[in-house]
Amino acid sequence: MTPVRTRNLLFAALVGVLALIAATAAHAADKKPNILFILTDNLGYGEIGVYGGGATRGAPTPRIDKIASEGLRLTNMNMETQCTPSRSSLMTGRFSIRSGTYAVPFGGVPEGLTQWEVTIAESLSAAGYVTALHGKWHLGSHDGRLPNDQGFDEWYGIPRTTDESMWSSSPGWSPEIAPLEKIMEGRKGQKSVALKDYDAVQRRLIDAEITKRSVAFMQRQAKAGKPFFMYVSLTQPHLPSEPNPAFKGRTGNGDWADMLAEMDANVGQMLDAVDTLGIADNTIVIFTSDNGPEFIQPWDGWAGPWRGAYFTALEGGIRVPFMIRWPGKVAAGRVSNEIMHGVDMFATLAKIAGAKVPDDRPIDSVDQSDFLLGKSAKSAREGFPIWGGNTLLAVKWRNWKLHFYRQDTMYDPPVKLGIPFIINLYTDPREEKPTADSWVVTPMLKMVGEFNATTKDNPLIPMGTPDPYAPPK
Amino acid sequence: MTPVRTRNLLFAALVGVLALIAATAAHAADKKPNILFILTDNLGYGEIGVYGGGATRGAPTPRIDKIASEGLRLTNMNMETQCTPSRSSLMTGRFSIRSGTYAVPFGGVPEGLTQWEVTIAESLSAAGYVTALHGKWHLGSHDGRLPNDQGFDEWYGIPRTTDESMWSSSPGWSPEIAPLEKIMEGRKGQKSVALKDYDAVQRRLIDAEITKRSVAFMQRQAKAGKPFFMYVSLTQPHLPSEPNPAFKGRTGNGDWADMLAEMDANVGQMLDAVDTLGIADNTIVIFTSDNGPEFIQPWDGWAGPWRGAYFTALEGGIRVPFMIRWPGKVAAGRVSNEIMHGVDMFATLAKIAGAKVPDDRPIDSVDQSDFLLGKSAKSAREGFPIWGGNTLLAVKWRNWKLHFYRQDTMYDPPVKLGIPFIINLYTDPREEKPTADSWVVTPMLKMVGEFNATTKDNPLIPMGTPDPYAPPK
Repeated sequence: MTPVRTRNLLFAALVGVLALIAATAAHAADKKPNILFILTDNLGYGEIGVYGGGATRGAPTPRIDKIASEGLRLTNMNMETQCTPSRSSLMTGRFSIRSGTYAVPFGGVPEGLTQWEVTIAESLSAAGYVTALHGKWHLGSHDGRLPNDQGFDEWYGIPRTTDESMWSSSPGWSPEIAPLEKIMEGRKGQKSVALKDYDAVQRRLIDAEITKRSVAFMQRQAKAGKPFFMYVSLTQPHLPSEPNPAFKGRTGNGDWADMLAEMDANVGQMLDAVDTLGIADNTIVIFTSDNGPEFIQPWDGWAGPWRGAYFTALEGGIRVPFMIRWPGKVAAGRVSNEIMHGVDMFATLAKIAGAKVPDDRPIDSVDQSDFLLGKSAKSAREGFPIWGGNTLLAVKWRNWKLHFYRQDTMYDPPVKLGIPFIINLYTDPREEKPTADSWVVTPMLKMVGEFNATTKDNPLIPMGTPDPYAPPK
Repeated sequence: MTPVRTRNLLFAALVGVLALIAATAAHAADKKPNILFILTDNLGYGEIGVYGGGATRGAPTPRIDKIASEGLRLTNMNMETQCTPSRSSLMTGRFSIRSGTYAVPFGGVPEGLTQWEVTIAESLSAAGYVTALHGKWHLGSHDGRLPNDQGFDEWYGIPRTTDESMWSSSPGWSPEIAPLEKIMEGRKGQKSVALKDYDAVQRRLIDAEITKRSVAFMQRQAKAGKPFFMYVSLTQPHLPSEPNPAFKGRTGNGDWADMLAEMDANVGQMLDAVDTLGIADNTIVIFTSDNGPEFIQPWDGWAGPWRGAYFTALEGGIRVPFMIRWPGKVAAGRVSNEIMHGVDMFATLAKIAGAKVPDDRPIDSVDQSDFLLGKSAKSAREGFPIWGGNTLLAVKWRNWKLHFYRQDTMYDPPVKLGIPFIINLYTDPREEKPTADSWVVTPMLKMVGEFNATTKDNPLIPMGTPDPYAPPK
């Protein structure tokens, strides 16, 4: 063979190999990405290392920090002000005030989401995803409104919240007076079953179990080759903020720091699983929190530079950590102060996953995929209204906020202001000094007006509405 | 030639080249590094992007942020509580209370450092450095106590502070009542000369001039081949926080944001000069601030997650941004929450530069070179006392602080507490909730006792002490 001929043959072979690689890559690009959505409970803006916490809180958080260096970190991600509302808008793409889920339920009414609502789990299921929730639900604690009734193929965790786990160690409590919340599990089409009491002991163990089950779920799905939506709803750092016994004393800096170290390790375990399973390039990892930090000592968290805690419309109540990693799709190390809202997750994930957003009802969710994937430097949202319960407390728009009420903590009743406060968040990040820049009120009230207009033909569902619910004709 | 012989020859040549490279590298390693020390005025912990500011303040700070990604960033760097004291301890390696410089002087006394003090500029000069200060001095505003009297080969800037530049636009002011501060320049061995009034116009221009002169100085020294100590003492963001006209309106987010953008660009110019001159590998770049942010509106700055402003012993008053870059010597992207103090700069820079630390007087400075260079993960310091004026307000030790006084702002008189507050900074970063962990008082009072012991034979120099000063025999 002449050298030239050899070279030509080698070249032809190379072209063939490259074509094969390209075809495989194209096939991979067509594959629906897995979604690992990690939601923490009451984790304030300031707790994680890359947000100014970690070591300054007594426990470095290297594993969670690394999501930021490998992906996009937002410094202006916003949620609703309480657990149930924020989880409702995450699940439905609709502000919770539409769905009768605008406040944490205190019992006595049929709490939670009506079955008429369409959850992101239902939408992704219809698009071919296997879906699971491990952890806290807080959108209905009776049959018909549990996660396996609302689109999840399987679930494990608590229907309500971690407050109740303290009861068992509270002086004077007995189960006859107030029965404990149960840790449950369930599968779509079957009745959920109670596994055990969610008491002070289980409170310390549950996140390890959530992590273990989440890793096992991802292992099963990676083997089965089906795309998954794994909603990991950690119970930490919600009060009582106590670490797993394996982490007790780990940092030498107390329960909070040990709990942070545990959270970091749990997230690390899930990231390791994604890597080990060889699915990292096709798995979107999101880490965020449902709202601002706890206010009650000694479980109080840290909103970092912002003022306020959850249940308030202050930045500390609504601005949360948010990081997203998707190798090759989301630029590594990007940081953005563009405004995004938890309600946007539905439309965004649906777009990426080729799933459907309901078109028979008002949807507040806007598709942020271009922003997250770097096709746009700008968010698709400039602002949003902020409710506390069913009261419109404030409106946020660009770097401005209009406070209709004064409320510094969850225990203060919102006091209606004589003249609303106009706050410039750039110059007054702690929201203490009203300005006179009243031009900003125009776009803000327009936004509120647009929301209100959608409620005319689609009335807000009252809290406590039983199933079956159907919208008025 | 046989192939073997060719190979041998090539090998020999390669060995020769490698030896040459190694020799050059060894020579470079022996060279004393240049030092570009950039000090900002009242820049709070929260202002720079990597500290949670930048875009959240309306102006990204990519150039300053990059120092962190290319070097070490500290989240627990501390300074004294006011301008003059912190600059005094930076220059002398001694807490300012030793040197009669424990408060910002308000005139009427011979202000500033006695000539008896040894400055880092004098020490580095003796070690072969060319030294310059461009910017604010604030350690004496009359002949004999200006920078060129205290070790700097050349200086340009203001002897005192930027407050006075506001006088010219204050209603009722006239130069007969209170003459304006002058912008000056001087050379070692010569009398400093006044160049012009430091008025409201010059206030906006001065940092550009400081930057220009600093770049020119580095160009001259790089050409001359002598190691330099370039102390760039920017006047921003001290009130009035107004940008250069070239930056006015740059961000669309107001004066503060424009000023931040200007600061970032000025630092960028200096970094570009270091790179362009080919001296990056042999130049230590440090960026920090003299104390916490301003309290007076609308010039008030942002301490980020910490509470308090300058003149207070709260973290907001003393914890400042600090980044150091030295390619190949300081690990890129390292972040540490170890405690360091501005007073340590003297011993640290002296060690690195092969310069002498005085041994005839108490020195508070500890050598942090092993820590900064990564030979130790730990700082060489566990804590320090915090004075406000000549009052011992608090002691900081590890993650604990002991407050002897309550003082929230510069205008509040420090009120002595009945029982000192013991604060755990990990669990209570905003210093609001005293704890009962009284064991920490033992190492804290030991530290104070050790300091006090050094003052017996070396009494504190009273504020207003004229030259010549000599220590008592």
